[in-house]
Amino acid sequence: MGNEDRYRAAEKAYRREKFVMPKELTYLAGNSLGPAVASVADRLVRTSNDQWGQHLAGAWKKNGWLSAPEEIGDRISLLLGADQGTTLVCDSTSINLFKLLNAALAVDPQRKVILTDQGNFSTDLYIAKSVGLIHQDVTVCIVPRSALIESLDPSVAVLMLSHVDYRSGQAHDMASFNEKARSVGALTLWDVSHSVGIMALDFNASGVDMAVGCGYKYLNGGPGAPAFVYVKSDLQNTLSNPIQGWLGHAEPFVFSENYMPASGIKRLQVGTPTTFSLAALAEGVDLLLEAGIQLVEHDSRELFDAFMAGLEPIVRKGHVHFLHDVQRSNVSGHIGFKVNDAEALHHRLMAENIVTEYRYPDLLRIAFNPLYTTVDEIEQTAAKLKHLLGQH
Amino acid sequence: MGNEDRYRAAEKAYRREKFVMPKELTYLAGNSLGPAVASVADRLVRTSNDQWGQHLAGAWKKNGWLSAPEEIGDRISLLLGADQGTTLVCDSTSINLFKLLNAALAVDPQRKVILTDQGNFSTDLYIAKSVGLIHQDVTVCIVPRSALIESLDPSVAVLMLSHVDYRSGQAHDMASFNEKARSVGALTLWDVSHSVGIMALDFNASGVDMAVGCGYKYLNGGPGAPAFVYVKSDLQNTLSNPIQGWLGHAEPFVFSENYMPASGIKRLQVGTPTTFSLAALAEGVDLLLEAGIQLVEHDSRELFDAFMAGLEPIVRKGHVHFLHDVQRSNVSGHIGFKVNDAEALHHRLMAENIVTEYRYPDLLRIAFNPLYTTVDEIEQTAAKLKHLLGQH
Repeated sequence: MGNEDRYRAAEKAYRREKFVMPKELTYLAGNSLGPAVASVADRLVRTSNDQWGQHLAGAWKKNGWLSAPEEIGDRISLLLGADQGTTLVCDSTSINLFKLLNAALAVDPQRKVILTDQGNFSTDLYIAKSVGLIHQDVTVCIVPRSALIESLDPSVAVLMLSHVDYRSGQAHDMASFNEKARSVGALTLWDVSHSVGIMALDFNASGVDMAVGCGYKYLNGGPGAPAFVYVKSDLQNTLSNPIQGWLGHAEPFVFSENYMPASGIKRLQVGTPTTFSLAALAEGVDLLLEAGIQLVEHDSRELFDAFMAGLEPIVRKGHVHFLHDVQRSNVSGHIGFKVNDAEALHHRLMAENIVTEYRYPDLLRIAFNPLYTTVDEIEQTAAKLKHLLGQH
Repeated sequence: MGNEDRYRAAEKAYRREKFVMPKELTYLAGNSLGPAVASVADRLVRTSNDQWGQHLAGAWKKNGWLSAPEEIGDRISLLLGADQGTTLVCDSTSINLFKLLNAALAVDPQRKVILTDQGNFSTDLYIAKSVGLIHQDVTVCIVPRSALIESLDPSVAVLMLSHVDYRSGQAHDMASFNEKARSVGALTLWDVSHSVGIMALDFNASGVDMAVGCGYKYLNGGPGAPAFVYVKSDLQNTLSNPIQGWLGHAEPFVFSENYMPASGIKRLQVGTPTTFSLAALAEGVDLLLEAGIQLVEHDSRELFDAFMAGLEPIVRKGHVHFLHDVQRSNVSGHIGFKVNDAEALHHRLMAENIVTEYRYPDLLRIAFNPLYTTVDEIEQTAAKLKHLLGQH
């Protein structure tokens, strides 16, 4: 079968009717904020009027609001290729990173280095530096990615990396970093914000120790959706939450004088779950589970192929510069590229109902989400790019 | 005019039609979770379908989602008797306490003591101890409330107190603690979770340095509503957020390598605002502003008076034991008392559609919220209590 048939056959994850979005919109900006899941509005009305309205304080137990962080976490763990009981939804990605970095440093007080790479997401670097400011004896070692392996030595407490580079879209090899870190006794902490929900992760196989991720990108959990933390089972009870709040306590309702951590992943919770935001996130996660993450990854790659095929003439003519050597093994759910007059191009595409992401000064970013993007849309986008760059 | 007329005249804050709750319910448990605000459901649907659904990533700017933490904060500051630009809605009460305690300790590195009282809310104590664990040279000094004044000396960096005791309902004199703390150069940090929205606070007059508070009690912001932080204007730029996330950055969208704190209260933000939960909170806060916090406090005190009058016979007979010497000057929006068979009594009242709060082992807690509670309901509750305790 030809390319076109192959693409069409691949569109099995497509669930556009499950989203509220303007019909004419091609939305390729899903790694900033995934589109609105249609079932969220009803779910929020039920949560507000039927649950909160009818049961008031009794609603916490009656509607499982208190266990939602673990229950939604268990569903997310299916996207991570991780065991049940390893993932908890809480707080923001930044606060979760802060908790896990502090916790990782406390595991072996002899290890005083947080190792990360210069290309990491800026807020991840800020958080690492925050932890370095609090612990005067801790060094935050920020090196080029190419120097990470040689920098891994027994002084390293934790290697903190983003799985996918937020600019380029380059996916990094989790398994090899994990293996090398393990060989020197360092823990790994991955930020999977730009891969969870669009790539079929396999934490168990690749040996991830800890991770955080964001709820509002490919999980389609809504604006400011709560984030999640992952800790592999046999590490959980070794970790102490540096922010000891009542819901990480073993018996939160006893209001005892001393803090006693809950066992398992629950100890990483701090305050009361934000119910509305959790309810919205649950709908986004369920939609992904319904489609199947293997299929989502597969179809995302088909969208990527269609884009690359369409773009090929202007790549060849040097109008588009990828930020890395794009190979099948480092493809993720998005690609970033440099182009002349990127901002103007972004606005021209917007005027044609094609939403991409522009990053100062010359970067365009395109996400390939088969839940709501078709091969046709991708081909039209590539054609439009060619046209706008004068490449007929 | 007689007592009854006086009470009836006082019911000006009453806005029961603004809440979704069972008609027959007397809800006196508002300091765990305020009831559902009727306008929330529509607001959430608009936020989901019209804002998120139609504008997707563009909705952040178009709908003021990014500035919501400051805007709702400004509205809450009206309930605090504080200036505009002093209050930010973010994270949970626990995480906000953690941020402010760390920030307070960094102001003057010579001061190494966090001072608080034994009766403080348990999670506040856990958080203080967390901060003590991170900073090995910091002492968390937890003393009986009666020993606080004598413990205030120049070693104290921060005096952390709850304004209202969550068990007894006793309101503490903010101004005198603030004055004494100021006299030794210590900062004050108040948790107003059990007073904001039911008492007319006056941070400016009483000289509060820093505060945190909860959104889901008297602010009726919904389950797990975001919390808030307050820092008085001239202290803000002296404080460093110990958790440096991108939205506390002066220029969050530049993604620069180094963290540069935003000026003002904004620097205490960390991650992305949880839009749905913020939208719900905004409705609860607006309802209070519409009623007027002075009137809410006034009418809450009338409900309290009616309750005390109705309870007087069983208090006299020793069936009810208040946890403190109840005087006009220390009344808050709720009262806690010990009673025999408290748990059974709580369930008997529940069976009569009267919701109180029970705390192990023998405590009942009653909130007086004139937004949805009438004098009749309070009188019937007192009568029912008398009856159940065999006091006809």
